[in-house]
Amino acid sequence: MADKGGFAARAGRLAKRLGSEGLDGVVMVPGPNIRYFTGVESFLLERPFMLLFTAQGGAHLVAPELEAGPYRRSPLEITVHSWTDSEGPSVAIAEAARRAGFEGRWAVEGRAPFGYLQKLTRGSRAKLQDGDPVLQGLREIKDEAEMELLRRSGAILSKSFREFPALLKEGISEMELAKAATDRIYQNGASKVDDMLVQSGPRAADPHSLPSPKKVRKGESVVIDVGANYCGYYADITRTFCLGAAKEVESVYGEVLEAQRQATIAAKDGAKVGEVDGGARGVLQRAGHGKEFIHRTGHGLGLEIHEAPYIVQDGKEKLREGMCFTVEPGVYLKGKLGVRIEDDVLMSGRVGEEITKVPKDYGWWR
Amino acid sequence: MADKGGFAARAGRLAKRLGSEGLDGVVMVPGPNIRYFTGVESFLLERPFMLLFTAQGGAHLVAPELEAGPYRRSPLEITVHSWTDSEGPSVAIAEAARRAGFEGRWAVEGRAPFGYLQKLTRGSRAKLQDGDPVLQGLREIKDEAEMELLRRSGAILSKSFREFPALLKEGISEMELAKAATDRIYQNGASKVDDMLVQSGPRAADPHSLPSPKKVRKGESVVIDVGANYCGYYADITRTFCLGAAKEVESVYGEVLEAQRQATIAAKDGAKVGEVDGGARGVLQRAGHGKEFIHRTGHGLGLEIHEAPYIVQDGKEKLREGMCFTVEPGVYLKGKLGVRIEDDVLMSGRVGEEITKVPKDYGWWR
Repeated sequence: MADKGGFAARAGRLAKRLGSEGLDGVVMVPGPNIRYFTGVESFLLERPFMLLFTAQGGAHLVAPELEAGPYRRSPLEITVHSWTDSEGPSVAIAEAARRAGFEGRWAVEGRAPFGYLQKLTRGSRAKLQDGDPVLQGLREIKDEAEMELLRRSGAILSKSFREFPALLKEGISEMELAKAATDRIYQNGASKVDDMLVQSGPRAADPHSLPSPKKVRKGESVVIDVGANYCGYYADITRTFCLGAAKEVESVYGEVLEAQRQATIAAKDGAKVGEVDGGARGVLQRAGHGKEFIHRTGHGLGLEIHEAPYIVQDGKEKLREGMCFTVEPGVYLKGKLGVRIEDDVLMSGRVGEEITKVPKDYGWWR
Repeated sequence: MADKGGFAARAGRLAKRLGSEGLDGVVMVPGPNIRYFTGVESFLLERPFMLLFTAQGGAHLVAPELEAGPYRRSPLEITVHSWTDSEGPSVAIAEAARRAGFEGRWAVEGRAPFGYLQKLTRGSRAKLQDGDPVLQGLREIKDEAEMELLRRSGAILSKSFREFPALLKEGISEMELAKAATDRIYQNGASKVDDMLVQSGPRAADPHSLPSPKKVRKGESVVIDVGANYCGYYADITRTFCLGAAKEVESVYGEVLEAQRQATIAAKDGAKVGEVDGGARGVLQRAGHGKEFIHRTGHGLGLEIHEAPYIVQDGKEKLREGMCFTVEPGVYLKGKLGVRIEDDVLMSGRVGEEITKVPKDYGWWR
């Protein structure tokens, strides 16, 4: 975690950025942004909970009293407007809005729930706009402390994946495999395991389908994709396995692996994200699988498992030192199979550094 | 899970309710509501993803192509407007809005992110209002299949809590205890463990603070509060432990236990939620701890760990058969200690049935 000076620097950069964009402030909600600026983690739940941060650097928090304590001790200086379940949030919200000068042009974190904003904007003439470009723009450049945590979570998740072949047996269900794999990641030191996906056979053709009671069979592709958090920071890895022989899986696997290699080679300081995506997409298009690569090549990693930079087709954003993102091309043949290979790349210097270390040659799991 | 007829009945009730409220439709986002009506679970992530459900019973889904597959096989008949990362969501959103007739009065799920709605409402004159009363109002009455799953998750989490005393040793850190307890709940069959809180000593006075490296000492109150999910449905239990002797912890514990007992007795068919809250609050006020009971007495349980009915002070909502909620009074003495005891109550008949079974007499953990 950043020290007190680190948090002051983050707040200073935010105030400056708001000013240069002509914004009067930004509304944040519990989660990665509030954590980034205050060091305190909270859940996004049904009780209204917002941080109003002004272009002058003022911070007004509306929070349920039972969550307010840690914010009073935050390294960021915050005025806390708390409310109890018996009082309800209206008075606290009005007071925070008044003190923060909630009028003019305000940015709002994209995740902010409709229910919170309805209460905040009642009777206000503030004009709201998307705050993610500002917030994600700051968070996507990692400092040294963050890079260290990203490497640690990458190491924990890599070690776990190297152990997964021992869990993968014919007849195990996707749910059983998901549970065993989750246990392994916790045992290796993760603070949290998120979005565990295990998909086998035709189910692997739906990239986001959740683990089911379906059993793993020989000759099927088996995709395992999971995120691990260490002290707030995420790693995200996917490997595709196959028990027994399966020519089509092996052939698609070879193309996806080459796609990942070309994308990673394209990850150079100053390159556009679209060039990284193009590295992977070009390989798969030439192999006749362009239409079956139905998602972007990757997404940023940090306090969120999906954040900027997004590695999208024709994307113009330029890679800079301190960015961290996944490279994860995939091919999905409806009703048949899916193959995806994902590793994490940190722009620690002029070229991207792969901070996840799991074998990837076809058959390494045997 | 409900069968196909069960899903049709849910959709029918929603259409009818929208009509009777004079609403043209409702916007839902990935999570419990979409799961309740379609049987499909998705994550609420950064890619715009909305279900537009009309008062005529039409269902239009905007979804990223890589999440769309399972919705095409949903028991609810859905028109899917999918989009790829290369296309972006604009065309799919406009098409879904046009086909669903997105104008007039629409309700919106409270969790809907600002970022999604900004894209949906661009150029539309639809008037938006809070959709939670309608959606939560339907979901708070559980059917037989749901009651069975709530009992199963309650049994899994209860068994785990009965095993926690074996994990609780002087010198163990809150984080170590959280991890060991989480492992235990998975081993007992949970699909998912959520919001694991372990707080010891003065940290227990902040009801929502997360597990820290602080070690557990003799004479401190140690609060463990965690939710377990089984096939979509949540149980939620809290117990407060104490190693060694501690007169003040024991005395506060006795008052909180009596508060919980009185609240549970007040949980009768037709009673107001405020009467249940009053049962607990009255005991703690008479004991001089009214101001230190800083939250509501409980919240509903179902596909969400916090949902309707909310058991709040002076709440007018009436308990009805099929409701399920927590009863969890607590007392928090700043800088010193916290005590909370939480069990889950299902309105399976004329009186509330406690579906979590963990001892609660002071010292049961020895």
